[in-house]
Amino acid sequence: MQTPWEYRYAHRMQNMKSSVIRELLKLTEQPDIISFGGGLPAPEVFPLKQFQEACNYVLENFGPQSLQYSTTEGYRPLREMIARHTARYSVEVTADNILITSGSQQALDFIGRLFLNRGDYIVVESPTYLGALQAWNSYGAQYIPVRADEDGMVVDELEAALRIGPKFIYVLPNFQNPSGSTLSLERRKKLVELADKYGVPIVEDDPYGQLRYEGEHIPSVVSLDSEYRGPNGGHYSGNVIYLSTFSKLLAPGLRLAWVIAPPEVIRKLVMTKQAADLHTASFNQYVAYEVAKGGFLDEHVKTIRATYKERRDVMIEMMEEVFPAGMRWSHPKGGMFLWGIMPNEMDAAEVLKRAVEKKVAFVPGEAFHATGGGKNTMRLNFSYSSPDTIREGIARLGETLKELMVERV
Amino acid sequence: MQTPWEYRYAHRMQNMKSSVIRELLKLTEQPDIISFGGGLPAPEVFPLKQFQEACNYVLENFGPQSLQYSTTEGYRPLREMIARHTARYSVEVTADNILITSGSQQALDFIGRLFLNRGDYIVVESPTYLGALQAWNSYGAQYIPVRADEDGMVVDELEAALRIGPKFIYVLPNFQNPSGSTLSLERRKKLVELADKYGVPIVEDDPYGQLRYEGEHIPSVVSLDSEYRGPNGGHYSGNVIYLSTFSKLLAPGLRLAWVIAPPEVIRKLVMTKQAADLHTASFNQYVAYEVAKGGFLDEHVKTIRATYKERRDVMIEMMEEVFPAGMRWSHPKGGMFLWGIMPNEMDAAEVLKRAVEKKVAFVPGEAFHATGGGKNTMRLNFSYSSPDTIREGIARLGETLKELMVERV
Repeated sequence: MQTPWEYRYAHRMQNMKSSVIRELLKLTEQPDIISFGGGLPAPEVFPLKQFQEACNYVLENFGPQSLQYSTTEGYRPLREMIARHTARYSVEVTADNILITSGSQQALDFIGRLFLNRGDYIVVESPTYLGALQAWNSYGAQYIPVRADEDGMVVDELEAALRIGPKFIYVLPNFQNPSGSTLSLERRKKLVELADKYGVPIVEDDPYGQLRYEGEHIPSVVSLDSEYRGPNGGHYSGNVIYLSTFSKLLAPGLRLAWVIAPPEVIRKLVMTKQAADLHTASFNQYVAYEVAKGGFLDEHVKTIRATYKERRDVMIEMMEEVFPAGMRWSHPKGGMFLWGIMPNEMDAAEVLKRAVEKKVAFVPGEAFHATGGGKNTMRLNFSYSSPDTIREGIARLGETLKELMVERV
Repeated sequence: MQTPWEYRYAHRMQNMKSSVIRELLKLTEQPDIISFGGGLPAPEVFPLKQFQEACNYVLENFGPQSLQYSTTEGYRPLREMIARHTARYSVEVTADNILITSGSQQALDFIGRLFLNRGDYIVVESPTYLGALQAWNSYGAQYIPVRADEDGMVVDELEAALRIGPKFIYVLPNFQNPSGSTLSLERRKKLVELADKYGVPIVEDDPYGQLRYEGEHIPSVVSLDSEYRGPNGGHYSGNVIYLSTFSKLLAPGLRLAWVIAPPEVIRKLVMTKQAADLHTASFNQYVAYEVAKGGFLDEHVKTIRATYKERRDVMIEMMEEVFPAGMRWSHPKGGMFLWGIMPNEMDAAEVLKRAVEKKVAFVPGEAFHATGGGKNTMRLNFSYSSPDTIREGIARLGETLKELMVERV
């Protein structure tokens, strides 16, 4: 007889939904569709030559080690390099503060596994990163959304949320996915103070921090927390768990990211990773270290910034030209995403259907809202498509919006 | 104030222990210790040249794609190659039956996440693979151990276990880790029938199937299940979830393994993987495909077999020479491990302490017993050390055992 699998699945699977974005990407995989839906880096900026040199160097000099099982914590020279990089941004850390993960998504999953009992609350921005919601839904998380504007989470509204007793606060302070907003310095400081006052940890997710196209660098939340606590004797032991990644600076296909946290949290995450996948691919860690160790990424990031800045500017210029009155959009100072806001009564899912007929796609914003809402919003990616493609895609989207607005009248 | 992290962790973390083996490996990392503790392939057999050629070929021909985000299911040509490979062993499967995972450990973790509610029972061999217990402990699994002998699980004792109502049966039919035993054909058939009778799925973990050094290949449980059910219209839709890996044939540092299961189970595992780490590293999948596609592994596995067979034989010969009366050990027909059994009253943990003084190490067998027992057993790895090192290590271990046995008299 056939096995009735659906009755064997664990209860947690009832909360699991396939990512709206990934499903949408399948829909828009027809080659003639211009998709602003994904969150892909521009493949033109991948440093292929440096990669190839690094692969050859690693195999010639560290062949057997780079292909063997290795430690769960991650390749030590890579962790030490990340520690030095972090120190440049005023956070004193050692390799014991660092775990290498298979992408930031894995770090989000591990944080869920380490902290969340069914029903636990998490404070999130509204909107927030969909991948985090996906990771934490399977642990039965509940969410307390705090309103965000162009300066990020409205921290004045955070205190009420903290009195609910959440497990942690989740923020993406730089060029947030999806909205593109950046948390102001003043709000970052207030966030650190409030989190300390209520004894609630902060998870700071920072994939795009290096991708700033205008304005001054703002210190990370972990560095402000470190400063707030004063000298710590060499390693970080504060209240923030910080995530970043090589996906946007180097290449996402390597699946390499890192977590910075107090050593005792890292030790627990290491146990979690041991049971989950033993360790991140050794070869990838050796190669990334070889590519990055001489400071190459410092130069390379300038190329990425120049490329993405142009694309952002082209997208915004074109929107100004073709989008109908009533449409608003964010002006992100970095990152990969721009946030579109339609008149309240419009539904982005409906707009998408019509847009796909015109061969252009985006992600409706509702999925980024942990507890619903945002039906009139959309996320647009500007890093992946060439300037010409962006012009053409925004023209098509403008046309779609105009038609639908006329029909509504 | 300091964050009291230990009170923030989820309840499931109370079941998490760091792997005995990994902790032990740290202890034995002194360079002058001969360790039979790990489960490492011999680095001498890694095909470095083929790897290097494949890396260069991939970067020259598929550079951007191989470094970009990719699908959660895995690289399609690799999945199709695995489907063809599987068909050679009489299981009709398509790419829809296959998910690429970051090592088999990740597949074990995902199976736990997909199936296990807290308190669910799993039928396991006694002893069984420690990594599986580690993965499933965090989901609150309980275990029903079934006795195993040199022909694997004693299937006559399985029926009583199935009437308890387990979520699934977990078996390693070929050259089991840790015992080295192989499930006989007759028992495999009985296993398939009993599992079908009670409607309980089987998880077949087969990392070593290709590493046979003597005797005839025995059909996998999934192929017997497929045969038992008859023609299925092209894809597999039976009662077995089958795991295998590139770690032993190619290199573990790539973290590449695969799951074969009915398409509906694969779809659920894909959702699980999406939330857990998006996808397995694209570059590694491209490179593994390039190395393997022309049939290279069929040749390469002969080298591995010859290397490991010699090491197994040297270990057994030396044991016959130097181990004291009262010691017994398995004669595995393949794989990487050999199982030592001391007289009942002896404790392998105590023996290990003394052995480490003599600069030789192994893994005490107790940890492989899901519900305790096996204090007088030990796992010895023969794949990693050279023949000369094996001779020296077994001589040291023999001396340790003799001393302890004399002391006991």
